[in-house]
Amino acid sequence: MSDTGAQPRGSGPNHAAIAEDSHLAETFVSSEEIFRGKLLHVVRDTVTLPNGRSATREYIKHPGAACIVAEFEDGKLLLERQYRYPMGKVMVEFPAGKLDSGENPLVAAQRELKEETGYWARSWHTLGQMHPLIAYADEVIHIFHANGLVQGDAKLDQDEFLELFAATPDEIAAMIADNRITDGKTITAFCRWQLLRRPGIV
Amino acid sequence: MSDTGAQPRGSGPNHAAIAEDSHLAETFVSSEEIFRGKLLHVVRDTVTLPNGRSATREYIKHPGAACIVAEFEDGKLLLERQYRYPMGKVMVEFPAGKLDSGENPLVAAQRELKEETGYWARSWHTLGQMHPLIAYADEVIHIFHANGLVQGDAKLDQDEFLELFAATPDEIAAMIADNRITDGKTITAFCRWQLLRRPGIV
Repeated sequence: MSDTGAQPRGSGPNHAAIAEDSHLAETFVSSEEIFRGKLLHVVRDTVTLPNGRSATREYIKHPGAACIVAEFEDGKLLLERQYRYPMGKVMVEFPAGKLDSGENPLVAAQRELKEETGYWARSWHTLGQMHPLIAYADEVIHIFHANGLVQGDAKLDQDEFLELFAATPDEIAAMIADNRITDGKTITAFCRWQLLRRPGIV
Repeated sequence: MSDTGAQPRGSGPNHAAIAEDSHLAETFVSSEEIFRGKLLHVVRDTVTLPNGRSATREYIKHPGAACIVAEFEDGKLLLERQYRYPMGKVMVEFPAGKLDSGENPLVAAQRELKEETGYWARSWHTLGQMHPLIAYADEVIHIFHANGLVQGDAKLDQDEFLELFAATPDEIAAMIADNRITDGKTITAFCRWQLLRRPGIV
């Protein structure tokens, strides 16, 4: 990818298209801030479509996040039960959290794991990235595998509430299969971890 | 789950918590519309936390979507290459689309597959649901497996641009493993399909 040079840094997504994708690519024209709340930052960009027509693209700008597949010595993985307001219920998910502005993803993963669960890990490996909602959010989630877990004290915010439990990979696969786990980042992280530890199996 | 009765229908998510989760659950107080655009509908709710304190929850309201794992007779799966503006690049993903208001998810899946790819399918099976972004969107994606594919003509909107290709499950697994596929709904749908067709393998 090469930059077009036409777009001010940071004013839109990285939409400099690979040359061979120019028949699919949309070109940035202008950007407008719609809403900047405590959590959500909503923008509306005007773009030019491949056919030369104009369109608007509304989406969420997000600093990115980290998600951790934390593995105990017995092979079980660390999960959380947390109430997710937009879902209206408690969800089962891997530990995860938002990057602080400019924060290194691995540092964020280590910080979030410690804060939310109390655990720190001796060994960390990247499992790549995933994009939770490509239609209307620029969020990228960096996925890590952590092992050599050592228990410490969690440091939850006073307004943060969650429960921890551990489950075997087979138990997690069963929970994914029967819809007890529906969280996209958790299923994606589990799938990526399975593929990278047992290539050829999935 | 039972309704609290305190909440006007449709004014917030279904946050009547299961009794055993009351120590984690947040309770709806009020809702405020922030933005209603062409695509995004942003609301900010005030809630009561389990500790009795007040908090706000900003999130996207979404009508839901359907995603299709469409399988050819030779075992290959149908994929799309589509420019996703918030990502700034072409993404590889399964066919998917938003539900029209009140639309049955299977009907939406059949409509989207036909419109985007031209294919219709003789046989459909549910692969459950997934939630792409539980922190700030109420969107649910209904996942379907389709086979017995018959080719027809796509009916893309004049402002919609995409390419189709087919890949074997092994090729898709390799693309997930090495970060060529990072779309959460696609990885989740692939994982769910693998688990339900070959239980015990993943």
